[in-house]
Amino acid sequence: MKDLTKIFYPETIAVIGSSENAMKWGSFISSNILSHDFKGRFYPVSKSYDTIYGRKAYRSLKDIEDEIDLLIITTPAATVMEILNDCVLIGIKNIVLISSGFSETGIEGKDLELKLTDFAKSNGLNIVGPNTMGITNTKVPLHATGSHVNVKSGDISIIAQSGNIGTQIMIWAEQQDIGIGKFVGSGNEAVIVCEDYLEYFFHDKDTSVILMYIEGVDKGRKFFEIAKEATLRKPVIALKGGRTGSGSRAAESHTGAMAGSYSVFNGAMSQCGIICADSPSELLLLSAVFSCMPLPKGNNIGILTLGGGWGVITADECEERGLAIPQLPDDVFNLLDKSLPPFWSRGNPVDLVGQPDTDLFMKAIEAMVASNAFDAVIFLGVIGAYKMGVRFKDAEYKLGMINNQELKGFNDFANLIQLSFLDMVLNLMERYDKPIHAVSLVSFPEDQAVYSKEGCKYKVIIHRTPEEAVLCLEKQYKYSKYLKGQEGLK
Amino acid sequence: MKDLTKIFYPETIAVIGSSENAMKWGSFISSNILSHDFKGRFYPVSKSYDTIYGRKAYRSLKDIEDEIDLLIITTPAATVMEILNDCVLIGIKNIVLISSGFSETGIEGKDLELKLTDFAKSNGLNIVGPNTMGITNTKVPLHATGSHVNVKSGDISIIAQSGNIGTQIMIWAEQQDIGIGKFVGSGNEAVIVCEDYLEYFFHDKDTSVILMYIEGVDKGRKFFEIAKEATLRKPVIALKGGRTGSGSRAAESHTGAMAGSYSVFNGAMSQCGIICADSPSELLLLSAVFSCMPLPKGNNIGILTLGGGWGVITADECEERGLAIPQLPDDVFNLLDKSLPPFWSRGNPVDLVGQPDTDLFMKAIEAMVASNAFDAVIFLGVIGAYKMGVRFKDAEYKLGMINNQELKGFNDFANLIQLSFLDMVLNLMERYDKPIHAVSLVSFPEDQAVYSKEGCKYKVIIHRTPEEAVLCLEKQYKYSKYLKGQEGLK
Repeated sequence: MKDLTKIFYPETIAVIGSSENAMKWGSFISSNILSHDFKGRFYPVSKSYDTIYGRKAYRSLKDIEDEIDLLIITTPAATVMEILNDCVLIGIKNIVLISSGFSETGIEGKDLELKLTDFAKSNGLNIVGPNTMGITNTKVPLHATGSHVNVKSGDISIIAQSGNIGTQIMIWAEQQDIGIGKFVGSGNEAVIVCEDYLEYFFHDKDTSVILMYIEGVDKGRKFFEIAKEATLRKPVIALKGGRTGSGSRAAESHTGAMAGSYSVFNGAMSQCGIICADSPSELLLLSAVFSCMPLPKGNNIGILTLGGGWGVITADECEERGLAIPQLPDDVFNLLDKSLPPFWSRGNPVDLVGQPDTDLFMKAIEAMVASNAFDAVIFLGVIGAYKMGVRFKDAEYKLGMINNQELKGFNDFANLIQLSFLDMVLNLMERYDKPIHAVSLVSFPEDQAVYSKEGCKYKVIIHRTPEEAVLCLEKQYKYSKYLKGQEGLK
Repeated sequence: MKDLTKIFYPETIAVIGSSENAMKWGSFISSNILSHDFKGRFYPVSKSYDTIYGRKAYRSLKDIEDEIDLLIITTPAATVMEILNDCVLIGIKNIVLISSGFSETGIEGKDLELKLTDFAKSNGLNIVGPNTMGITNTKVPLHATGSHVNVKSGDISIIAQSGNIGTQIMIWAEQQDIGIGKFVGSGNEAVIVCEDYLEYFFHDKDTSVILMYIEGVDKGRKFFEIAKEATLRKPVIALKGGRTGSGSRAAESHTGAMAGSYSVFNGAMSQCGIICADSPSELLLLSAVFSCMPLPKGNNIGILTLGGGWGVITADECEERGLAIPQLPDDVFNLLDKSLPPFWSRGNPVDLVGQPDTDLFMKAIEAMVASNAFDAVIFLGVIGAYKMGVRFKDAEYKLGMINNQELKGFNDFANLIQLSFLDMVLNLMERYDKPIHAVSLVSFPEDQAVYSKEGCKYKVIIHRTPEEAVLCLEKQYKYSKYLKGQEGLK
């Protein structure tokens, strides 16, 4: 196993090609590291600048009188071999090679990359890239990518064979308040390959969910062996690019990956317990769910809704995705029948027909979560409903019925009710160890997508649509079933 | 055909059960109408209030000395028949019956509803509902629904057999700046049924796209006859609830709709040119696209990307959805080869490998749109890219390299460039009459989803993900093919 610890947890970093020129990678990377408060020692190396962002710049690597844990190279491909020579002389082992101009550009680049691979292997160099977007470890914090992302720290780690897909995922995570641990754009994988990162993240105690965007894997056998072991301990969620002829041709011109047969690859992924996503946004969503929630033990889903049509759509989605909507067992039926208005749906989905009573809703959720008849619960509404109430108050304000103070008071009060409701949902999830998926009635851009509380093992994910919640439950159920099957094989 | 003009364009409205009590529908509806500046005459009718939101309240309908174009009833089911009797005496023809407690609640309610249907038919009353969320016509403006939505005016009209799905769609439209014309929650459809609204919207000159959420249709034959005629002139986009056993059972308890066989219904929808959506959010997205863009004449798609992985994903999605990614014809190839850096992808997807040069990107888009080899273009990036640039500037600001003024200046400048780019895209779409789908590199919650310009026939939709753009193109292509087939039958 390759030891990538100093790459992700460096105490000293040098950047060759560091710059203040806003058109250069040496500037993107340096400003990213510094503005995100890297706590270690930082050494810019530049032929043109005496200082970089207020730090003393060095003319050459050799001028730095410190041990360099991680070297980042942003200068042109032609300069790289000489720098690597220096690395060997100085004793630098770990390198992030941002520079492009290697195998992705044609025959000459391919030759250069072969040379680089040989050199690295014979001299024991760990190289990320070349042609990589860079790396991140929010725990250090180390933000050494070309794109500036302000994502919060978490336990999801990302391996991306495409830099901008990786960046998009991190920006979405930032917007949705989903924590990310490490990120690596694996670039051309001349030295450290996809399966090395997978193996490292598998053993990394700061990572609990692994997210991958893959176009191709050179050593499929090794990749799947590692994956099979990893998925027994950590969910591995992957999106395969190049599933079709058009996609494979594009992948070939992108990373040079020979995509191979998707059906074979896909079958292998499922067989080793990898959770397959269909798009980058799904990758992130699933990672968040697997990082925040217990797995369901079976596929029996209880649905609660504030509106009939919504329950219909959710039930359709469940059945289409292989989840069951069992009838209500007698005890749950009787409990609900006692508390609910006479015209309740008397079935699963339980339709509370617009009743805005959150206590009632909470009672119904608990009755279903507590019952052995259900392995998971999806509830639709309550969350987000208060925002519609605020709009009504807003109209009263416009019509001169209440003042600004009262409007604000209502908003704060309604928000508090929602938070205490989320708190109860989280407590139920902790107590019964079953996933509860929340779907917001109407979600506004500024709304939180994750509710967490100090000291709790789980978090509540607030979905924007029921189809999103059902998709997640399907994947959770499949993974849970896979793990059970593996258990049986022992 | 039922004439629903006075329902959607009333000059006088009375609300029975009007109230200032924040727990009552009479208050939701009245405050909604008034706070959204209804320009006609408004008459609240109430047993308890002398004024409602500052308007004089009437004890009874009979006290109002004006012709009532539209009556909205919010009082309990038991009061309704007497009110309808009054309507006949006074000469009120058009009613929105919010009240619940009819067929959705059991046998007694069913009987009452049958009575109501008979009475309405023999006395020529037009009744929306009962058990409806209400209606909207943003053009009047008339906002007579229980939920307060501030959506902007447009040409998409909505028929929903579920009030809260309708509300969600309108809130999403509001957030995404998509214009809505009319909305009706059809409720129990005791008098005016789904196909009546469809027929009315088909002939309505203010409607150019029709969006439907359907659980069941009583007179399938009539519905499909009208739909077949309507789709020749206006796109009709529908989501069917109750596609599965679980969904149908839920639908039965919701609207009492006998969902019937989905495969039969689905087949019939396709045969009469209805565009089928798979979820409420898809319904809205497709409606926006069909309202803003020309149709592609074939399925040959050109893809332009700022990043390789992204092109791979888009090509996969296209092929999986029956769209073709043809090779670049020689003239386009040569044109691009002259302008692009030597390491460009030399194929479709055209990968500009992170080149931030918008002029180059625009040239490439035009080369593809202008070519006969392509019926539509998807471009990934440029839009949203400047926000990443702003983050870099933000880091420079944090590191003391630029001041606040310079940061703001850059932001404004980059925003202007993006707007001028969108403007050029819009011009290309107008000039070549081909759809161009934009996908944002990273979209932020506050970002606009639609770019429009006075005097232009089309608008640019800015998608959040490539899969969204591809889905839309697939549906556009299928509809275009359907229309061509119908043309051939003439």
